[in-house]
Amino acid sequence: MLLLAFMPPIAAQTGAAPPNGMQPGAYDRPMPASIPYPAELTRSLTALRNAALNDDYAFQQAAHLTENIGPRPDGSPQAQAAVEYVADQLRKLGLETHLEPVKVPQWTRGVETAELVEYPGQPPGARQKVVLTALGGNQPTPPEGLTAEVVTVSSFDELKALGREGVAGRVVLFNVKFDDRKAENGFAFEAYDETVIYRAGGARAAAELGAVASLVRSVGNADYRLPHTGYSARAGIPSGAVTAEDADLISHLCAQGKVRIHLVLTSATGADVPSYNVVADLKGSEHPEQVVIVSGHLDSWDLGTGAIDDAAGVAVAMEAAQLIQQLRLHPKRTLRVIAWMDEENGGRGHDAYAQAHATELLNHVAAIESDSGAAHPLGFMAKISPAAALKLSPLAEVLRPIGANLLKLTDSSPEADIMPLAEKGVPALGLLQDGRRYFNFHHTAADTLDKIAPQELRENAAAMAVMGYALADMPEALPR
Amino acid sequence: MLLLAFMPPIAAQTGAAPPNGMQPGAYDRPMPASIPYPAELTRSLTALRNAALNDDYAFQQAAHLTENIGPRPDGSPQAQAAVEYVADQLRKLGLETHLEPVKVPQWTRGVETAELVEYPGQPPGARQKVVLTALGGNQPTPPEGLTAEVVTVSSFDELKALGREGVAGRVVLFNVKFDDRKAENGFAFEAYDETVIYRAGGARAAAELGAVASLVRSVGNADYRLPHTGYSARAGIPSGAVTAEDADLISHLCAQGKVRIHLVLTSATGADVPSYNVVADLKGSEHPEQVVIVSGHLDSWDLGTGAIDDAAGVAVAMEAAQLIQQLRLHPKRTLRVIAWMDEENGGRGHDAYAQAHATELLNHVAAIESDSGAAHPLGFMAKISPAAALKLSPLAEVLRPIGANLLKLTDSSPEADIMPLAEKGVPALGLLQDGRRYFNFHHTAADTLDKIAPQELRENAAAMAVMGYALADMPEALPR
Repeated sequence: MLLLAFMPPIAAQTGAAPPNGMQPGAYDRPMPASIPYPAELTRSLTALRNAALNDDYAFQQAAHLTENIGPRPDGSPQAQAAVEYVADQLRKLGLETHLEPVKVPQWTRGVETAELVEYPGQPPGARQKVVLTALGGNQPTPPEGLTAEVVTVSSFDELKALGREGVAGRVVLFNVKFDDRKAENGFAFEAYDETVIYRAGGARAAAELGAVASLVRSVGNADYRLPHTGYSARAGIPSGAVTAEDADLISHLCAQGKVRIHLVLTSATGADVPSYNVVADLKGSEHPEQVVIVSGHLDSWDLGTGAIDDAAGVAVAMEAAQLIQQLRLHPKRTLRVIAWMDEENGGRGHDAYAQAHATELLNHVAAIESDSGAAHPLGFMAKISPAAALKLSPLAEVLRPIGANLLKLTDSSPEADIMPLAEKGVPALGLLQDGRRYFNFHHTAADTLDKIAPQELRENAAAMAVMGYALADMPEALPR
Repeated sequence: MLLLAFMPPIAAQTGAAPPNGMQPGAYDRPMPASIPYPAELTRSLTALRNAALNDDYAFQQAAHLTENIGPRPDGSPQAQAAVEYVADQLRKLGLETHLEPVKVPQWTRGVETAELVEYPGQPPGARQKVVLTALGGNQPTPPEGLTAEVVTVSSFDELKALGREGVAGRVVLFNVKFDDRKAENGFAFEAYDETVIYRAGGARAAAELGAVASLVRSVGNADYRLPHTGYSARAGIPSGAVTAEDADLISHLCAQGKVRIHLVLTSATGADVPSYNVVADLKGSEHPEQVVIVSGHLDSWDLGTGAIDDAAGVAVAMEAAQLIQQLRLHPKRTLRVIAWMDEENGGRGHDAYAQAHATELLNHVAAIESDSGAAHPLGFMAKISPAAALKLSPLAEVLRPIGANLLKLTDSSPEADIMPLAEKGVPALGLLQDGRRYFNFHHTAADTLDKIAPQELRENAAAMAVMGYALADMPEALPR
């Protein structure tokens, strides 16, 4: 993973700890000089940034999506209402707006309860409640639930070592701790990557050895008895996430003796249903066929109201268009706002887009998504060439006043919805936010509007507007 | 409220911010000199402190009470198991142990769900989920729930101003924010006092104006969609606590237009049932009839496992006796360990004790309780005379190395279970802990074992053992 900065960042000057996701020692090469942008472009970018910092359009959009519309899981009335609302708002901004069809899976949460029914020291007549939530795509238990002995493991290797004999007929708990200190030190996504593999693949691995259900310690770094849901690969057995506290409880008791759990997870999977990506163009004045995407995803998990994941992303993408219109700017290329559907449960939205636009991708100059929260932006992650990075270096001057002047080059797409485009060679950028608290709330009931600080959202809108407009109005299209 | 310190505390010397609960400017009077303790007493206190800091008995007790036994609401199998377990453990320490009967109320939580069924911007077919919990003693809704318009107020005055016309037939939401900054600055209990009045008395005030139900914003300072339960005075209408996030949501929507809520809170109140205080004496060598109480409460709310409220308090009281036995010390007066029942839902345990021992209270030299959590101890709160405070000042030397050398004199009993004794003139002391995070977890599902830091619990055990033993072995009984 190569790491650059638009300009030598503050960390390099002061010796302070590197910010979110930065590898130490990455700043020791001075950036090559680059050709400055035309003065008019720089003026426009500065005006966009300043306007964003004084505008509440994005926050109002996030508030409407979360509080008036609510949770937006695939196929829900709220997801449909969000499609219509966002399309309507983008039309009001004067964008050429249409809906692009996507068939989405329909998965609805049911009853989700669990109790330990046998454990060391159990008082007569007592059971210990376990707080948990079903993972997306969960295969339900029978309505009356299932009861089985629990076995805990802390890695796939430990699971393998138990073998079929130790696993068959049992409920497996993958008790792998999210590394709080990594998150606090700016490596939240590394901590996530280390643990999310158990959420995504644990059930399948457990099922292969005959487990009757799979539980995972919630992937996140807070201690408020809050379960974190998320995608889990189909495994043919029920799969849920218990809270950190319940993972501790179960593993402590398992260390003392036999523990049996009664588990009820009655989620249901329905037939695929029609839904939409919202696609809205602010047409380019010189090269309308050349497209720069600014985007977030409209669907959310159902437990919270999907504020930081990802009403915020949709809102800052909408704000980029709103500010360009407000300032009566006319970029050379087309700025395309996309609100993606089904990021959370399979990515049908971005797959459908990539397929529908397969013949136009050479004209996709770049794609940006914001899908890592709404906290203070540090800059961008980008799957782009070093030559492209050089072309972006003049942005440092515009972004440094809001602290968003880092550029982290990545080997793979920085965000999920732009991955199919990135794989076809489209330069792909993601907003890089301060991630320290992101996984406190990610995929939980506490992903609600109050988690968005209005000033931080304005900074994100500024970063998105500046990057989107620069890509759409640079003298030459960003090299691949 | 008078405020002293065993010794001039660090705050006075350095000008640092005053610690938990301290009023600025309270340190400007130098403490009068006091008669030192006999050398042997000082040696014993130092040995107790050092032993406590190297002993895990208290943590093991807290672990067993929370993880093996579990939540301990009045009348539950777990409360009964806890009574038997603690009595058994105290007998094993060699204490004269007996159970004192208490009739306790039986209140069991039922279904607790709520949804907004009408609100501005509502998508067709959508409802907004509201996360809430019933307050203790809740009057249930019908099994199918009730539906009514919501009106929000931010004070009792606002409620009165609405009058019967604005309140009758509606659900009242008391949306009063817990002052996070007060808590962070060491005044957590002041922040609690300002808001808990709505939890305790809101339903009754709303019912008087014809409300059909009462909701309160959860009394606590965290933002993890976590409702906080607690005692509410009987009002004849259902009463619950919504999370901070849901209070925000409802009040935002109410500001935009009409909001109707569907509320299901099917808790049940049963007949009173027999339960017990556990009372265990380590008999005094010279004045066995003189009693010093060290205590915590055994019952807990049902949502969590009652770790910081108050398995920790019971555990440090048990640890005080354990350490005295371990070091083969023989205090002059009787050290009485009490594990109180029903602190949370009416205080029948402490009332029963005060009644049963009414004729012996002149021989109660002092009563100590730990019921403000398990975080680092700063010292003690005490309803004692200045003369008594003077007699405690030699403790500063023993307690300062663990940072627990503050003494905060209070006008009323520092803890609930020793209040009936304090009102009869018994010197009453409560452990004063760092309260900054206490109300993050208090009365929630997240009050679990992991919230107790073992080293901090050891410090609490040290403070309890030192104070308990000093009071039991001082040359003369503490003056009233």
